[in-house]
Amino acid sequence: MVQSIAIAGNSGPKVRSDCEISLELNAEGGINIDLVSKVKSLYGESIRTLTIEILEFFKIRNASVKITDSGALPFVIAARLESAVKQLIDTDLDYLPEFIIENNYSTSRNRFRFSRLYLPGNTPGLMINAGLHSADGIILDLEDSVASGKKDEARILVRNALRQVNFYGAERMVRINQGEKGLEDLRFVIPHNVNLILIPKCESASYVSRVAEEIYNIKKALSLNLNLNNPVFLMPIIETALGVENAFEIARASKDVVALAIGLEDYTADLGVPRTSEGNESFYARTRIVVAAKAAGIQPIDSVFSDVGNMEALRQNVLISKGLGFEGMGCIHPRQIPVIRNGFAPEESEIEKSREIIFAFEMAKRKGLGVIAIGTKMIDLPVVDRAQKTIDLAVRLGLLSPNWIDGFQAEDN
Amino acid sequence: MVQSIAIAGNSGPKVRSDCEISLELNAEGGINIDLVSKVKSLYGESIRTLTIEILEFFKIRNASVKITDSGALPFVIAARLESAVKQLIDTDLDYLPEFIIENNYSTSRNRFRFSRLYLPGNTPGLMINAGLHSADGIILDLEDSVASGKKDEARILVRNALRQVNFYGAERMVRINQGEKGLEDLRFVIPHNVNLILIPKCESASYVSRVAEEIYNIKKALSLNLNLNNPVFLMPIIETALGVENAFEIARASKDVVALAIGLEDYTADLGVPRTSEGNESFYARTRIVVAAKAAGIQPIDSVFSDVGNMEALRQNVLISKGLGFEGMGCIHPRQIPVIRNGFAPEESEIEKSREIIFAFEMAKRKGLGVIAIGTKMIDLPVVDRAQKTIDLAVRLGLLSPNWIDGFQAEDN
Amino acid sequence: MVQSIAIAGNSGPKVRSDCEISLELNAEGGINIDLVSKVKSLYGESIRTLTIEILEFFKIRNASVKITDSGALPFVIAARLESAVKQLIDTDLDYLPEFIIENNYSTSRNRFRFSRLYLPGNTPGLMINAGLHSADGIILDLEDSVASGKKDEARILVRNALRQVNFYGAERMVRINQGEKGLEDLRFVIPHNVNLILIPKCESASYVSRVAEEIYNIKKALSLNLNLNNPVFLMPIIETALGVENAFEIARASKDVVALAIGLEDYTADLGVPRTSEGNESFYARTRIVVAAKAAGIQPIDSVFSDVGNMEALRQNVLISKGLGFEGMGCIHPRQIPVIRNGFAPEESEIEKSREIIFAFEMAKRKGLGVIAIGTKMIDLPVVDRAQKTIDLAVRLGLLSPNWIDGFQAEDN
Repeated sequence: MVQSIAIAGNSGPKVRSDCEISLELNAEGGINIDLVSKVKSLYGESIRTLTIEILEFFKIRNASVKITDSGALPFVIAARLESAVKQLIDTDLDYLPEFIIENNYSTSRNRFRFSRLYLPGNTPGLMINAGLHSADGIILDLEDSVASGKKDEARILVRNALRQVNFYGAERMVRINQGEKGLEDLRFVIPHNVNLILIPKCESASYVSRVAEEIYNIKKALSLNLNLNNPVFLMPIIETALGVENAFEIARASKDVVALAIGLEDYTADLGVPRTSEGNESFYARTRIVVAAKAAGIQPIDSVFSDVGNMEALRQNVLISKGLGFEGMGCIHPRQIPVIRNGFAPEESEIEKSREIIFAFEMAKRKGLGVIAIGTKMIDLPVVDRAQKTIDLAVRLGLLSPNWIDGFQAEDN
Repeated sequence: MVQSIAIAGNSGPKVRSDCEISLELNAEGGINIDLVSKVKSLYGESIRTLTIEILEFFKIRNASVKITDSGALPFVIAARLESAVKQLIDTDLDYLPEFIIENNYSTSRNRFRFSRLYLPGNTPGLMINAGLHSADGIILDLEDSVASGKKDEARILVRNALRQVNFYGAERMVRINQGEKGLEDLRFVIPHNVNLILIPKCESASYVSRVAEEIYNIKKALSLNLNLNNPVFLMPIIETALGVENAFEIARASKDVVALAIGLEDYTADLGVPRTSEGNESFYARTRIVVAAKAAGIQPIDSVFSDVGNMEALRQNVLISKGLGFEGMGCIHPRQIPVIRNGFAPEESEIEKSREIIFAFEMAKRKGLGVIAIGTKMIDLPVVDRAQKTIDLAVRLGLLSPNWIDGFQAEDN
Repeated sequence: MVQSIAIAGNSGPKVRSDCEISLELNAEGGINIDLVSKVKSLYGESIRTLTIEILEFFKIRNASVKITDSGALPFVIAARLESAVKQLIDTDLDYLPEFIIENNYSTSRNRFRFSRLYLPGNTPGLMINAGLHSADGIILDLEDSVASGKKDEARILVRNALRQVNFYGAERMVRINQGEKGLEDLRFVIPHNVNLILIPKCESASYVSRVAEEIYNIKKALSLNLNLNNPVFLMPIIETALGVENAFEIARASKDVVALAIGLEDYTADLGVPRTSEGNESFYARTRIVVAAKAAGIQPIDSVFSDVGNMEALRQNVLISKGLGFEGMGCIHPRQIPVIRNGFAPEESEIEKSREIIFAFEMAKRKGLGVIAIGTKMIDLPVVDRAQKTIDLAVRLGLLSPNWIDGFQAEDN
């Protein structure tokens, strides 16, 4: 016997901005909708209209629908209903909500990736305001934060979120699943202007190549869609010993790889050791990944910090991470974002010192001198390079005017 | 002139369970045996009988034999006499003592290798009770603990020990010599149910392959012997910088490799640095070897701890070693075994915590929840994985019943 | 219009042992020399004679020369004038000062390279007495210490210094530039008995091969010159993450590579991190380079220490460096040399302990014992190896007689 009742979505006292939809296909009797919602008087009619429209789209004429609503937005209701439908009937159709114009932006290879906020891919309540926290990136996660029985639902919800939720310029990232399932995930997100794909538990360059190829194929098949001209970058996450062994090869597996991250919870689990705050157990892996990433010309990104209640410990962690060469870190709570962002940004004193060095270097160059000195201290060329990087960072972060040197010169004279 | 007197074995005030045999081949006069032994009255006759039997086996009719006995068991006397004989005559014959039925066991790829006790290959006194100390493995060493002039004697003694000494289920290991000599060693031990070969100062995957191939050839040539169906595992030991560079390739050089060990005395000597207790000089090598081994899916094994008098320092060393991901350590004295075994086993509190996590995970699964929590704390999947590993270890060590979860559930409800 | 005035060299209140030469080519009027020098009365005539000789050598008949002299030796004046000439006319001629016989020495693969003193390649004042400081090596630097506009001048000055300055047995090294410019540099120094080429910011084995090949070609083209039979060794310097990734391949890229150095100012700049005194940011790179070098059978050499005023900090740094396996370090000031040399040399107590071990080992060998003991303490073979290395070092440093063991034995009996 074919399944005739399907349930999708979530309900319960702690659920926000979601709904649970129960769908039963009938032989006759038309569409019956039973809506339970606190906002029924305000939105009841539009929810019914949407429901009928979607069922019609999937050519369903006779069905009983029970909607237990907890304040779901239309893109959520649509995702839940489509998920229920697809449990019951085979169809190639996708009910796509409008792609809002604000979401049609691309990102660049070298943009900052100081902070990126993880959002469970099947929890709409966390998605809606996520863009307000000013994270550099937003990750819609299809992997570990989604229960294995909910993967199909999450794919459709994430797809709809990519079309409808405004993330206010944050890099729009999706973490796919591992292996073949991860390759299938791509079909659900690539056509909807995702900016970056996170590849979890990455262990080989060949898998990265397969992801890049699959993305290329999806974009080619849909080449009429203009959005698909935006680049889709890749960020493999190293989470096993084998991944560490292959880190350099992974880092340069594709020109689309822009960053290499490490995931320490999984990594220490793979080693079978506790994750300590001193981190001796992962020092080798972390430093090797920094070198692998820098050697490949991409950004090394550190692991998330689990203790969301301890901001001082996070701050210390960021400083250590930055001192080793990492250029960013994942976040699992919005309140971690400013601590991480400020931590990775150059300090005021660092900027000031760099200005002095660059100024002295420019003066020496104009005077045709081969040796650069501040007072009696000789300055090596690598020190100048490092100072220039700090200045570039400060300028890009808006902490310094691009023309600062003119003002600086004036002050000095 | 051909050599006509040979001496084998050891004697002296500190020698136990050994004998020194001096053999002179004569043109006539039959067999003359001169036995010096404290147990002459008890065992004198059987020693004489054995001596005559062995000389007959090698077709020696006229000889003077002087036996200085320090309590040698028959397998030792036989080994010493055979060694003396083979110094004087060319023969393809081997005088093999009975293979005791208790020794016909095999081991498994993933068994614990927390502790393995090194036994000098030419010192029978240390072999006889070695199995009583409950080490996971017993190493009969043909390499560094055997003087270069005694290698031939040791091969025969080790062969006889493999046939006659009961090691009570400990994994029966032999450490061969380096290079060509090591490949020759195999012929003496492989036919006698050795469980694992230690490859010292291993520097290349190709040498591991040659060992594996040589073992295969020896087993094939003797295929009628049923014992030879038991697997012979390999444990390369990394003891040089070149070995460290090639560690990952070595770890996956053969499907028979089950563990990768590091030897820090040799390694620090190769680097030309003192071995310190902080170990900064070998931190890179140790952590790289853990990663190489785990990446290849085999066990990383730490170096022996030299200070046999300091049990507290050993205990600390084991905890650091375990914290880095090592799964075992060599022992050079039996008293180190329990400290190492207990150190690598999971602690009571660790087991308890893991039970809580696995229980919560199982409950969440049964309820169809995607998110696992203990109280209000969210539990990541890697944490569950790590807890499961601890539970598996505890069950295998007999610290926990395989059905613990039923009891746990009952308690909780 | 073709350039008709050229300036080369340096002048000014802080300039010593150098001169600035301004050369103007005229259509007629013969040679006019305007010399400004404090030593004019003593050396004025010989400077004029040299100037005329060089101009004649380059077939210049009409020119105005202004020489602002700060005590330049003839090889400096010659270099500066040749540099000025080559700015104005195209010529294949080189005005080579005499190659002094004291400079015709070669060095050996395994000689000590504890200390090597960096000398800016365009600053003659620092070159002249550099050999008096007893550094193991003297580096004439064409790279970072020479302003980009002064590279041509420096090449000629360094060439002349290699021919005329006595470095008293120090290994005569030249640091070339990166890339193609570095390959061109070789033509200026290889024919003048340079002992070792430093390859800065080395990132690939293939570049090392190109350097080795270019050296071979230069030597082959000039095969009549007997000096060219001396070996030219290579020391690549790792200064980037990519260099670290390729360190082992670089270390064994050519049989001429005898050492592998790390440059931490550039390396930390490449990582974009501050260089700290604890050095966590470079621990991975340093230890990996030690292993790569030792695995290739060459010397690992640590970075220079920048704070030339703090001798105690330098001493600590040397001890840490030596403890990790490094066998030398660069110097940027002569006063660093004795601290580095003494730091890398074995300590008195270390030598004494090593003598005891080697003596016990020799005694055991003579007695045919397989086990070595000092008192009741067993000595492992690796410990003997390490002791032997210390003894070899002490003998080579002249801290111990090659026949020490005879005296030691006598004392003991």
